[in-house]
Amino acid sequence: MLVLITYDVSTVSSAGQRRLRRVSKVCQNYGQRVQNSVFECVVDAAQFATLKLKLMDIIDPDQDSLRFYQLGNNYKNKVEHIGVKESLDLEGPLIL
Amino acid sequence: MLVLITYDVSTVSSAGQRRLRRVSKVCQNYGQRVQNSVFECVVDAAQFATLKLKLMDIIDPDQDSLRFYQLGNNYKNKVEHIGVKESLDLEGPLIL
Repeated sequence: MLVLITYDVSTVSSAGQRRLRRVSKVCQNYGQRVQNSVFECVVDAAQFATLKLKLMDIIDPDQDSLRFYQLGNNYKNKVEHIGVKESLDLEGPLIL
Repeated sequence: MLVLITYDVSTVSSAGQRRLRRVSKVCQNYGQRVQNSVFECVVDAAQFATLKLKLMDIIDPDQDSLRFYQLGNNYKNKVEHIGVKESLDLEGPLIL
């Protein structure tokens, strides 16, 4: 199934930037980054559970916000895109 | 149905900040902002079409990225949240 992961972190601090990089790395093992803080991961139920645990271990729950949206298996007609395809500067200061 | 809208814009420029504020205002007529650049809107098909047109009119397709995810009507058990509930500074410089 497709799981959409959105992650809100303050990247003003280098610790925040580091957390975003780590979240991105973990998510990219399961899918792709579609916006600076939006990841689409294709996982089964067990992988989803593992992925959640990994991400919960990275983020700071007092500062960051992490959301998961399950889009099921027939997700292709549920997703639409407008505008530029990728973030311009994914590994930069990540100001968006 | 629930439509998730994610919006990637460079807010380094004041024009980008202005576009994000305008996107936020439009989306908040249909739902709520759940992260700095993530909006959850509850709409029917006609409202969704109108909303899309309004947003396409605001964004700069050469610089910004806008994505729509349709989560259907039974969305409550498809959404999970971890961490802080709202962005700390929604109307500030919107660096995330």
